[in-house]
Amino acid sequence: MVGAGNVAWHLAPALEDTGLVMERVYSRQLKRAQQLADRLYGTDVQDHLDFSTSDANLFILAVSDDAITEVAQQLVLPEAATVVHTSGSQPLQALRKADTPLTGVFYPLQTFSRHRLPDFRTVPICLESDDSGVLSRLTKLAKKVSGYVALVDSEERQTLHVAAVLANNFTNHLLHMAETFVDAHRIDFTLLHPLIEETILKALDNGPATSQTGPAVRDDGSTIRRHTKQLRAFDPGYAKVYRLLTQHIKEMKETK
Amino acid sequence: MVGAGNVAWHLAPALEDTGLVMERVYSRQLKRAQQLADRLYGTDVQDHLDFSTSDANLFILAVSDDAITEVAQQLVLPEAATVVHTSGSQPLQALRKADTPLTGVFYPLQTFSRHRLPDFRTVPICLESDDSGVLSRLTKLAKKVSGYVALVDSEERQTLHVAAVLANNFTNHLLHMAETFVDAHRIDFTLLHPLIEETILKALDNGPATSQTGPAVRDDGSTIRRHTKQLRAFDPGYAKVYRLLTQHIKEMKETK
Repeated sequence: MVGAGNVAWHLAPALEDTGLVMERVYSRQLKRAQQLADRLYGTDVQDHLDFSTSDANLFILAVSDDAITEVAQQLVLPEAATVVHTSGSQPLQALRKADTPLTGVFYPLQTFSRHRLPDFRTVPICLESDDSGVLSRLTKLAKKVSGYVALVDSEERQTLHVAAVLANNFTNHLLHMAETFVDAHRIDFTLLHPLIEETILKALDNGPATSQTGPAVRDDGSTIRRHTKQLRAFDPGYAKVYRLLTQHIKEMKETK
Repeated sequence: MVGAGNVAWHLAPALEDTGLVMERVYSRQLKRAQQLADRLYGTDVQDHLDFSTSDANLFILAVSDDAITEVAQQLVLPEAATVVHTSGSQPLQALRKADTPLTGVFYPLQTFSRHRLPDFRTVPICLESDDSGVLSRLTKLAKKVSGYVALVDSEERQTLHVAAVLANNFTNHLLHMAETFVDAHRIDFTLLHPLIEETILKALDNGPATSQTGPAVRDDGSTIRRHTKQLRAFDPGYAKVYRLLTQHIKEMKETK
Protein backbone atom coordinates (compact mmCIF):
# COMPACT_ATOMS: atom_id res chain seq x y z
CA MET A 1 0.00 0.00 0.00
CA VAL A 2 1.74 3.16 -1.21
CA GLY A 3 0.16 5.89 0.90
CA ALA A 4 -1.51 6.07 4.30
CA GLY A 5 -4.25 8.67 3.75
CA ASN A 6 -8.01 8.21 4.08
CA VAL A 7 -8.39 5.85 1.11
CA ALA A 8 -5.49 3.62 2.20
CA TRP A 9 -6.74 3.74 5.80
CA HIS A 10 -10.00 2.01 4.86
CA LEU A 11 -8.97 0.09 1.73
CA ALA A 12 -6.01 -1.76 3.25
CA PRO A 13 -8.02 -3.49 6.03
CA ALA A 14 -10.85 -4.22 3.57
CA LEU A 15 -8.39 -5.93 1.19
CA GLU A 16 -6.74 -7.81 4.04
CA ASP A 17 -10.18 -9.08 5.09
CA THR A 18 -10.44 -10.80 1.69
CA GLY A 19 -7.35 -12.87 2.49
CA LEU A 20 -4.77 -10.64 0.82
CA VAL A 21 -1.49 -10.22 2.69
CA MET A 22 -0.57 -6.54 3.02
CA GLU A 23 3.22 -6.86 2.96
CA ARG A 24 4.19 -3.21 3.38
CA VAL A 25 2.83 0.28 3.87
CA TYR A 26 4.72 3.26 2.50
CA SER A 27 4.34 6.82 3.65
CA ARG A 28 6.75 9.75 3.49
CA GLN A 29 6.00 10.03 7.21
CA LEU A 30 6.96 6.71 8.79
CA LYS A 31 4.66 7.42 11.74
CA ARG A 32 1.60 7.55 9.48
CA ALA A 33 2.65 4.33 7.75
CA GLN A 34 3.01 2.69 11.18
CA GLN A 35 -0.47 3.85 12.27
CA LEU A 36 -1.97 2.10 9.27
CA ALA A 37 0.27 -0.98 9.68
CA ASP A 38 -0.99 -1.24 13.26
CA ARG A 39 -4.47 -1.91 11.84
CA LEU A 40 -3.06 -4.83 9.80
CA TYR A 41 -1.31 -8.16 10.51
CA GLY A 42 2.50 -8.45 10.19
CA THR A 43 2.77 -5.50 7.84
CA ASP A 44 6.12 -3.70 7.47
CA VAL A 45 6.54 0.03 6.91
CA GLN A 46 8.96 2.16 4.91
CA ASP A 47 9.39 5.81 3.99
CA HIS A 48 11.24 5.35 0.68
CA LEU A 49 9.95 4.07 -2.65
CA ASP A 50 12.46 1.26 -3.22
CA PHE A 51 10.46 -1.99 -3.25
CA SER A 52 13.08 -4.00 -5.16
CA THR A 53 13.37 -6.51 -2.31
CA SER A 54 9.58 -6.82 -1.91
CA ASP A 55 7.70 -10.06 -2.54
CA ALA A 56 4.51 -8.12 -3.31
CA ASN A 57 3.08 -8.29 -6.81
CA LEU A 58 0.40 -5.61 -6.51
CA PHE A 59 1.27 -2.00 -5.60
CA ILE A 60 -1.64 0.26 -4.79
CA LEU A 61 -0.95 3.98 -5.11
CA ALA A 62 -3.34 5.68 -2.70
CA VAL A 63 -1.57 9.05 -2.74
CA SER A 64 -2.94 12.50 -3.55
CA ASP A 65 -3.98 13.08 -7.18
CA ASP A 66 -1.09 15.49 -7.89
CA ALA A 67 1.51 13.03 -6.61
CA ILE A 68 0.50 9.95 -8.66
CA THR A 69 2.66 10.57 -11.74
CA GLU A 70 5.75 11.43 -9.73
CA VAL A 71 5.43 8.60 -7.21
CA ALA A 72 4.74 6.10 -10.04
CA GLN A 73 7.94 7.20 -11.75
CA GLN A 74 10.03 6.95 -8.57
CA LEU A 75 8.76 3.50 -7.54
CA VAL A 76 11.47 0.84 -7.73
CA LEU A 77 9.56 -2.38 -8.31
CA PRO A 78 10.28 -6.10 -8.22
CA GLU A 79 9.82 -8.02 -11.47
CA ALA A 80 6.31 -8.48 -12.96
CA ALA A 81 4.75 -6.08 -10.50
CA THR A 82 1.34 -4.52 -11.14
CA VAL A 83 0.75 -0.87 -10.19
CA VAL A 84 -2.70 0.65 -9.79
CA HIS A 85 -3.89 4.04 -8.61
CA THR A 86 -7.11 4.71 -6.71
CA SER A 87 -8.02 8.15 -8.04
CA GLY A 88 -11.29 9.26 -9.61
CA SER A 89 -9.80 12.23 -11.38
CA GLN A 90 -6.55 10.86 -12.85
CA PRO A 91 -6.29 8.88 -16.10
CA LEU A 92 -4.68 5.46 -16.37
CA GLN A 93 -1.93 7.30 -18.26
CA ALA A 94 -0.81 8.93 -15.00
CA LEU A 95 1.04 5.61 -14.44
CA ARG A 96 2.79 5.58 -17.84
CA LYS A 97 6.22 6.30 -16.35
CA ALA A 98 6.02 3.41 -13.88
CA ASP A 99 8.72 0.77 -14.37
CA THR A 100 6.17 -1.87 -15.45
CA PRO A 101 3.67 -2.23 -18.30
CA LEU A 102 1.17 -3.82 -15.88
CA THR A 103 -0.87 -0.84 -14.74
CA GLY A 104 -4.48 -0.25 -13.82
CA VAL A 105 -7.00 1.78 -11.84
CA PHE A 106 -8.81 0.53 -8.75
CA TYR A 107 -11.10 3.42 -7.81
CA PRO A 108 -13.48 3.04 -4.85
CA LEU A 109 -16.19 5.63 -5.57
CA GLN A 110 -16.85 6.93 -2.08
CA THR A 111 -15.82 9.77 0.19
CA PHE A 112 -13.60 8.46 2.97
CA SER A 113 -12.99 10.09 6.35
CA ARG A 114 -10.61 8.84 8.97
CA HIS A 115 -13.21 8.25 11.66
CA ARG A 116 -16.16 6.97 9.64
CA LEU A 117 -16.15 3.26 8.87
CA PRO A 118 -17.44 2.65 5.33
CA ASP A 119 -19.32 -0.54 4.45
CA PHE A 120 -17.04 -1.61 1.60
CA ARG A 121 -19.63 -4.12 0.28
CA THR A 122 -21.69 -1.10 -0.90
CA VAL A 123 -18.79 0.94 -2.34
CA PRO A 124 -18.70 0.77 -6.16
CA ILE A 125 -15.23 -0.21 -7.38
CA CYS A 126 -14.39 1.25 -10.80
CA LEU A 127 -11.71 -0.71 -12.66
CA GLU A 128 -9.58 0.02 -15.70
CA SER A 129 -6.56 -1.53 -17.37
CA ASP A 130 -5.08 -1.93 -20.87
CA ASP A 131 -3.88 -5.39 -19.88
CA SER A 132 -6.50 -8.14 -19.86
CA GLY A 133 -4.57 -10.18 -17.27
CA VAL A 134 -4.40 -7.21 -14.90
CA LEU A 135 -8.09 -6.46 -15.48
CA SER A 136 -9.13 -10.00 -14.71
CA ARG A 137 -7.05 -10.04 -11.54
CA LEU A 138 -8.39 -6.66 -10.36
CA THR A 139 -11.94 -7.83 -11.06
CA LYS A 140 -11.50 -10.91 -8.86
CA LEU A 141 -10.05 -8.79 -6.08
CA ALA A 142 -12.72 -6.07 -6.36
CA LYS A 143 -15.53 -8.64 -6.24
CA LYS A 144 -14.16 -9.98 -2.97
CA VAL A 145 -14.30 -6.48 -1.46
CA SER A 146 -17.50 -5.06 -2.92
CA GLY A 147 -20.86 -6.12 -4.32
CA TYR A 148 -20.63 -3.47 -7.05
CA VAL A 149 -17.76 -3.69 -9.56
CA ALA A 150 -17.81 -1.72 -12.84
CA LEU A 151 -15.46 -1.28 -15.77
CA VAL A 152 -14.97 2.46 -16.17
CA ASP A 153 -12.44 3.94 -18.59
CA SER A 154 -10.49 7.16 -17.94
CA GLU A 155 -12.95 9.37 -19.81
CA GLU A 156 -15.97 7.88 -18.03
CA ARG A 157 -14.19 8.24 -14.71
CA GLN A 158 -13.61 11.90 -15.50
CA THR A 159 -17.35 12.31 -16.15
CA LEU A 160 -18.15 10.58 -12.86
CA HIS A 161 -15.71 12.88 -11.11
CA VAL A 162 -17.48 16.01 -12.36
CA ALA A 163 -20.85 14.50 -11.40
CA ALA A 164 -19.45 13.69 -7.96
CA VAL A 165 -18.51 17.34 -7.46
CA LEU A 166 -22.12 18.31 -8.22
CA ALA A 167 -23.65 15.53 -6.12
CA ASN A 168 -21.22 15.62 -3.20
CA ASN A 169 -19.24 18.88 -2.87
CA PHE A 170 -22.03 21.16 -4.08
CA THR A 171 -24.89 19.49 -2.16
CA ASN A 172 -22.74 19.70 0.96
CA HIS A 173 -22.18 23.39 0.26
CA LEU A 174 -25.94 23.99 0.00
CA LEU A 175 -26.38 22.28 3.37
CA HIS A 176 -23.62 24.51 4.71
CA MET A 177 -25.45 27.58 3.38
CA ALA A 178 -28.74 26.39 4.91
CA GLU A 179 -27.06 25.76 8.26
CA THR A 180 -25.29 29.13 8.31
CA PHE A 181 -28.53 30.91 7.41
CA VAL A 182 -30.67 29.29 10.14
CA ASP A 183 -27.83 29.53 12.70
CA ALA A 184 -27.66 33.29 12.08
CA HIS A 185 -31.37 33.44 12.95
CA ARG A 186 -30.84 31.31 16.09
CA ILE A 187 -32.90 28.45 14.70
CA ASP A 188 -31.85 24.86 15.33
CA PHE A 189 -30.48 23.29 12.11
CA THR A 190 -31.54 19.83 13.31
CA LEU A 191 -35.14 20.86 12.51
CA LEU A 192 -34.11 20.41 8.88
CA HIS A 193 -32.35 17.05 9.30
CA PRO A 194 -35.37 14.79 8.64
CA LEU A 195 -36.26 16.84 5.54
CA ILE A 196 -32.72 16.53 4.21
CA GLU A 197 -32.61 12.76 4.76
CA GLU A 198 -35.98 12.24 3.09
CA THR A 199 -34.99 14.51 0.17
CA ILE A 200 -32.04 12.28 -0.61
CA LEU A 201 -33.82 8.95 -0.05
CA LYS A 202 -36.64 10.11 -2.32
CA ALA A 203 -34.25 11.33 -5.02
CA LEU A 204 -32.39 7.99 -4.95
CA ASP A 205 -35.58 5.87 -4.85
CA ASN A 206 -37.71 7.73 -7.40
CA GLY A 207 -35.05 9.64 -9.34
CA PRO A 208 -34.30 13.34 -8.85
CA ALA A 209 -36.10 14.34 -12.07
CA THR A 210 -39.53 13.39 -10.73
CA SER A 211 -38.71 14.52 -7.17
CA GLN A 212 -38.17 18.20 -7.97
CA THR A 213 -40.52 20.45 -5.96
CA GLY A 214 -40.46 24.04 -4.74
CA PRO A 215 -41.06 27.58 -5.98
CA ALA A 216 -38.67 27.35 -8.97
CA VAL A 217 -40.28 24.35 -10.64
CA ARG A 218 -43.77 25.73 -9.79
CA ASP A 219 -42.66 29.09 -11.24
CA ASP A 220 -44.00 30.74 -8.09
CA GLY A 221 -42.74 34.29 -8.70
CA SER A 222 -43.94 35.89 -5.47
CA THR A 223 -42.23 33.28 -3.26
CA ILE A 224 -39.05 33.52 -5.35
CA ARG A 225 -39.03 37.32 -4.97
CA ARG A 226 -39.64 37.10 -1.20
CA HIS A 227 -36.87 34.50 -0.73
CA THR A 228 -34.41 36.47 -2.87
CA LYS A 229 -35.09 39.59 -0.83
CA GLN A 230 -34.60 37.74 2.48
CA LEU A 231 -31.32 36.26 1.27
CA ARG A 232 -30.04 39.52 -0.18
CA ALA A 233 -30.53 41.18 3.21
CA PHE A 234 -28.52 38.35 4.78
CA ASP A 235 -25.75 38.02 2.18
CA PRO A 236 -25.82 39.06 -1.50
CA GLY A 237 -23.79 35.95 -2.43
CA TYR A 238 -26.62 33.74 -1.15
CA ALA A 239 -29.17 35.63 -3.23
CA LYS A 240 -26.97 35.17 -6.31
CA VAL A 241 -26.81 31.38 -5.78
CA TYR A 242 -30.58 31.29 -5.18
CA ARG A 243 -31.33 33.24 -8.36
CA LEU A 244 -29.04 31.18 -10.60
CA LEU A 245 -30.24 27.78 -9.32
CA THR A 246 -33.88 28.92 -9.58
CA GLN A 247 -33.26 30.00 -13.16
CA HIS A 248 -31.48 26.73 -13.97
CA ILE A 249 -34.32 24.62 -12.51
CA LYS A 250 -36.75 26.50 -14.77
CA GLU A 251 -34.48 26.00 -17.79
CA MET A 252 -34.12 22.27 -17.18
CA LYS A 253 -37.89 21.96 -16.84
CA GLU A 254 -38.42 23.71 -20.18
CA THR A 255 -35.93 21.58 -22.08
CA LYS A 256 -37.49 18.34 -20.80
CA MET B 1 -59.35 17.85 7.84
CA VAL B 2 -59.80 20.60 5.27
CA GLY B 3 -57.89 19.31 2.24
CA ALA B 4 -56.91 15.90 0.92
CA GLY B 5 -53.45 16.54 -0.60
CA ASN B 6 -50.15 14.97 0.39
CA VAL B 7 -49.93 16.58 3.85
CA ALA B 8 -53.53 15.66 4.75
CA TRP B 9 -53.01 12.17 3.32
CA HIS B 10 -50.29 11.37 5.88
CA LEU B 11 -51.24 13.73 8.73
CA ALA B 12 -54.86 12.56 9.12
CA PRO B 13 -54.02 8.88 9.81
CA ALA B 14 -51.13 9.94 12.08
CA LEU B 15 -53.50 12.11 14.14
CA GLU B 16 -56.12 9.39 14.22
CA ASP B 17 -53.50 6.98 15.55
CA THR B 18 -53.13 9.25 18.60
CA GLY B 19 -56.80 8.67 19.46
CA LEU B 20 -58.22 11.75 17.73
CA VAL B 21 -61.52 11.22 15.91
CA MET B 22 -61.34 12.56 12.35
CA GLU B 23 -64.97 13.63 11.91
CA ARG B 24 -64.87 14.90 8.34
CA VAL B 25 -62.63 15.37 5.35
CA TYR B 26 -63.24 18.25 2.96
CA SER B 27 -62.02 18.45 -0.60
CA ARG B 28 -63.37 20.41 -3.56
CA GLN B 29 -63.29 17.01 -5.28
CA LEU B 30 -65.46 14.67 -3.25
CA LYS B 31 -63.65 11.67 -4.73
CA ARG B 32 -60.35 12.79 -3.25
CA ALA B 33 -61.97 13.43 0.12
CA GLN B 34 -63.43 9.91 -0.02
CA GLN B 35 -60.03 8.35 -0.84
CA LEU B 36 -58.60 9.90 2.31
CA ALA B 37 -61.70 9.05 4.40
CA ASP B 38 -61.25 5.43 3.31
CA ARG B 39 -57.95 5.41 5.20
CA LEU B 40 -59.75 6.51 8.38
CA TYR B 41 -62.52 5.16 10.65
CA GLY B 42 -66.10 6.43 10.30
CA THR B 43 -65.04 9.70 8.69
CA ASP B 44 -67.58 11.70 6.61
CA VAL B 45 -66.73 13.70 3.51
CA GLN B 46 -67.99 16.97 2.05
CA ASP B 47 -67.13 19.26 -0.85
CA HIS B 48 -68.38 22.54 0.64
CA LEU B 49 -66.94 24.62 3.49
CA ASP B 50 -70.02 24.81 5.72
CA PHE B 51 -69.12 23.03 8.96
CA SER B 52 -71.85 24.72 11.06
CA THR B 53 -73.38 21.35 11.96
CA SER B 54 -70.01 19.78 12.79
CA ASP B 55 -69.10 18.58 16.27
CA ALA B 56 -65.40 19.03 15.54
CA ASN B 57 -63.44 21.63 17.46
CA LEU B 58 -60.17 21.57 15.52
CA PHE B 59 -60.09 22.39 11.80
CA ILE B 60 -56.84 21.67 10.02
CA LEU B 61 -56.30 23.54 6.76
CA ALA B 62 -54.01 21.35 4.67
CA VAL B 63 -54.64 23.17 1.40
CA SER B 64 -52.16 24.77 -1.01
CA ASP B 65 -50.35 27.88 0.27
CA ASP B 66 -52.20 30.25 -2.09
CA ALA B 67 -55.62 28.97 -1.00
CA ILE B 68 -55.21 29.32 2.79
CA THR B 69 -56.48 32.90 3.20
CA GLU B 70 -59.49 32.37 0.94
CA VAL B 71 -60.50 28.99 2.39
CA ALA B 72 -60.08 30.33 5.95
CA GLN B 73 -62.44 33.20 5.10
CA GLN B 74 -65.05 30.91 3.53
CA LEU B 75 -65.09 28.36 6.37
CA VAL B 76 -68.39 28.32 8.25
CA LEU B 77 -67.45 27.07 11.68
CA PRO B 78 -69.25 25.81 14.78
CA GLU B 79 -68.80 27.82 17.98
CA ALA B 80 -65.40 27.93 19.72
CA ALA B 81 -63.64 26.19 16.83
CA THR B 82 -59.88 26.34 16.41
CA VAL B 83 -58.40 26.70 12.90
CA VAL B 84 -54.79 25.90 12.07
CA HIS B 85 -52.88 25.78 8.80
CA THR B 86 -50.02 23.41 8.00
CA SER B 87 -47.86 25.60 5.75
CA GLY B 88 -44.18 26.43 6.10
CA SER B 89 -44.36 29.56 3.99
CA GLN B 90 -47.55 31.27 5.19
CA PRO B 91 -47.79 33.47 8.32
CA LEU B 92 -50.27 32.91 11.11
CA GLN B 93 -51.94 36.07 9.80
CA ALA B 94 -53.11 34.14 6.73
CA LEU B 95 -55.93 32.95 9.03
CA ARG B 96 -56.95 36.44 10.22
CA LYS B 97 -60.23 36.40 8.27
CA ALA B 98 -61.38 33.09 9.75
CA ASP B 99 -64.58 33.32 11.76
CA THR B 100 -62.79 32.53 15.04
CA PRO B 101 -60.04 34.18 17.09
CA LEU B 102 -58.63 30.72 17.90
CA THR B 103 -56.02 30.23 15.18
CA GLY B 104 -52.63 28.58 14.97
CA VAL B 105 -50.04 26.86 12.81
CA PHE B 106 -49.29 23.14 12.90
CA TYR B 107 -46.45 22.72 10.40
CA PRO B 108 -44.90 19.28 9.90
CA LEU B 109 -41.43 20.08 8.48
CA GLN B 110 -41.09 17.30 5.94
CA THR B 111 -41.61 16.67 2.23
CA PHE B 112 -44.62 14.39 1.74
CA SER B 113 -45.34 12.22 -1.28
CA ARG B 114 -48.44 10.14 -1.78
CA HIS B 115 -46.68 6.78 -1.96
CA ARG B 116 -43.94 7.22 0.63
CA LEU B 117 -44.89 6.51 4.21
CA PRO B 118 -43.20 9.01 6.56
CA ASP B 119 -42.26 8.05 10.10
CA PHE B 120 -44.17 10.82 11.85
CA ARG B 121 -42.25 10.28 15.12
CA THR B 122 -39.20 11.83 13.41
CA VAL B 123 -41.03 14.72 11.69
CA PRO B 124 -40.44 18.05 13.49
CA ILE B 125 -43.75 19.77 14.21
CA CYS B 126 -43.47 23.58 14.26
CA LEU B 127 -46.22 25.26 16.27
CA GLU B 128 -47.44 28.85 16.55
CA SER B 129 -50.43 30.61 18.06
CA ASP B 130 -51.28 33.97 19.65
CA ASP B 131 -53.63 32.17 22.02
CA SER B 132 -52.02 30.36 24.93
CA GLY B 133 -54.90 27.88 25.20
CA VAL B 134 -54.61 26.95 21.53
CA LEU B 135 -50.82 26.66 21.85
CA SER B 136 -51.04 24.34 24.82
CA ARG B 137 -53.61 22.16 23.06
CA LEU B 138 -51.54 22.00 19.85
CA THR B 139 -48.46 21.14 21.87
CA LYS B 140 -50.21 18.18 23.52
CA LEU B 141 -51.43 16.95 20.16
CA ALA B 142 -48.07 17.42 18.41
CA LYS B 143 -46.23 15.53 21.16
CA LYS B 144 -48.52 12.56 20.63
CA VAL B 145 -47.62 12.49 16.92
CA SER B 146 -43.92 13.37 16.94
CA GLY B 147 -40.85 13.20 19.13
CA TYR B 148 -39.74 16.67 17.98
CA VAL B 149 -42.01 19.65 18.70
CA ALA B 150 -40.78 23.24 18.42
CA LEU B 151 -42.31 26.69 18.86
CA VAL B 152 -41.55 28.57 15.66
CA ASP B 153 -43.02 32.00 14.92
CA SER B 154 -44.00 33.21 11.45
CA GLU B 155 -40.69 34.96 10.82
CA GLU B 156 -38.65 31.95 11.92
CA ARG B 157 -40.82 29.67 9.80
CA GLN B 158 -40.11 31.91 6.82
CA THR B 159 -36.37 31.54 7.49
CA LEU B 160 -36.75 27.75 7.71
CA HIS B 161 -38.67 27.79 4.46
CA VAL B 162 -35.84 29.54 2.61
CA ALA B 163 -33.32 27.14 4.16
CA ALA B 164 -35.53 24.22 3.09
CA VAL B 165 -35.40 25.43 -0.52
CA LEU B 166 -31.59 25.39 -0.34
CA ALA B 167 -31.39 22.06 1.47
CA ASN B 168 -34.19 20.24 -0.36
CA ASN B 169 -35.13 21.76 -3.75
CA PHE B 170 -31.60 22.85 -4.68
CA THR B 171 -29.80 19.70 -3.50
CA ASN B 172 -32.35 17.66 -5.47
CA HIS B 173 -31.63 19.82 -8.51
CA LEU B 174 -27.89 19.16 -8.21
CA LEU B 175 -28.62 15.43 -8.09
CA HIS B 176 -30.80 15.91 -11.17
CA MET B 177 -27.93 17.68 -12.94
CA ALA B 178 -25.50 14.91 -11.94
CA GLU B 179 -27.89 12.23 -13.18
CA THR B 180 -28.57 13.99 -16.48
CA PHE B 181 -24.83 14.49 -17.03
CA VAL B 182 -23.84 10.84 -16.42
CA ASP B 183 -26.91 9.52 -18.29
CA ALA B 184 -25.84 11.53 -21.35
CA HIS B 185 -22.49 9.71 -21.17
CA ARG B 186 -24.23 6.33 -20.77
CA ILE B 187 -22.89 5.86 -17.26
CA ASP B 188 -25.05 4.27 -14.57
CA PHE B 189 -26.18 6.93 -12.05
CA THR B 190 -26.46 4.26 -9.32
CA LEU B 191 -22.62 4.26 -9.20
CA LEU B 192 -23.02 7.60 -7.40
CA HIS B 193 -25.74 6.50 -4.97
CA PRO B 194 -23.46 5.34 -2.12
CA LEU B 195 -21.43 8.55 -2.40
CA ILE B 196 -24.58 10.67 -2.22
CA GLU B 197 -25.91 8.81 0.83
CA GLU B 198 -22.59 9.07 2.65
CA THR B 199 -22.26 12.78 1.76
CA ILE B 200 -25.55 13.52 3.51
CA LEU B 201 -24.97 11.24 6.51
CA LYS B 202 -21.56 12.83 7.02
CA ALA B 203 -22.93 16.36 6.70
CA LEU B 204 -25.67 15.61 9.25
CA ASP B 205 -23.34 13.79 11.66
CA ASN B 206 -20.31 16.08 11.55
CA GLY B 207 -21.85 19.29 10.23
CA PRO B 208 -21.55 20.47 6.61
CA ALA B 209 -18.97 23.15 7.49
CA THR B 210 -16.29 20.58 8.38
CA SER B 211 -17.38 18.12 5.67
CA GLN B 212 -16.64 20.36 2.69
CA THR B 213 -14.16 18.74 0.28
CA GLY B 214 -13.39 19.02 -3.43
CA PRO B 215 -11.54 21.26 -5.87
CA ALA B 216 -13.28 24.51 -4.82
CA VAL B 217 -12.34 24.38 -1.13
CA ARG B 218 -8.83 23.11 -2.07
CA ASP B 219 -8.59 25.97 -4.60
CA ASP B 220 -7.44 23.40 -7.18
CA GLY B 221 -7.45 25.65 -10.25
CA SER B 222 -6.47 23.06 -12.85
CA THR B 223 -9.27 20.65 -11.85
CA ILE B 224 -11.78 23.53 -11.76
CA ARG B 225 -10.76 24.62 -15.26
CA ARG B 226 -10.97 21.04 -16.60
CA HIS B 227 -14.41 20.49 -15.05
CA THR B 228 -15.73 23.83 -16.31
CA LYS B 229 -14.55 23.01 -19.82
CA GLN B 230 -16.19 19.56 -19.75
CA LEU B 231 -19.47 21.03 -18.53
CA ARG B 232 -19.42 23.93 -21.00
CA ALA B 233 -19.10 21.42 -23.85
CA PHE B 234 -22.12 19.57 -22.44
CA ASP B 235 -24.33 22.56 -21.55
CA PRO B 236 -23.24 26.16 -20.80
CA GLY B 237 -25.89 26.41 -18.05
CA TYR B 238 -24.15 23.62 -16.14
CA ALA B 239 -20.80 25.40 -16.40
CA LYS B 240 -22.40 28.58 -15.04
CA VAL B 241 -23.78 26.74 -12.00
CA TYR B 242 -20.39 25.07 -11.47
CA ARG B 243 -18.50 28.37 -11.63
CA LEU B 244 -20.83 30.23 -9.28
CA LEU B 245 -20.96 27.49 -6.64
CA THR B 246 -17.18 27.06 -6.83
CA GLN B 247 -16.74 30.80 -6.32
CA HIS B 248 -19.23 30.81 -3.42
CA ILE B 249 -17.48 27.89 -1.68
CA LYS B 250 -14.21 29.86 -1.88
CA GLU B 251 -15.91 33.01 -0.54
CA MET B 252 -17.47 31.17 2.39
CA LYS B 253 -14.12 29.64 3.23
CA GLU B 254 -12.45 33.08 3.25
CA THR B 255 -15.07 34.68 5.49
CA LYS B 256 -14.81 31.91 8.09
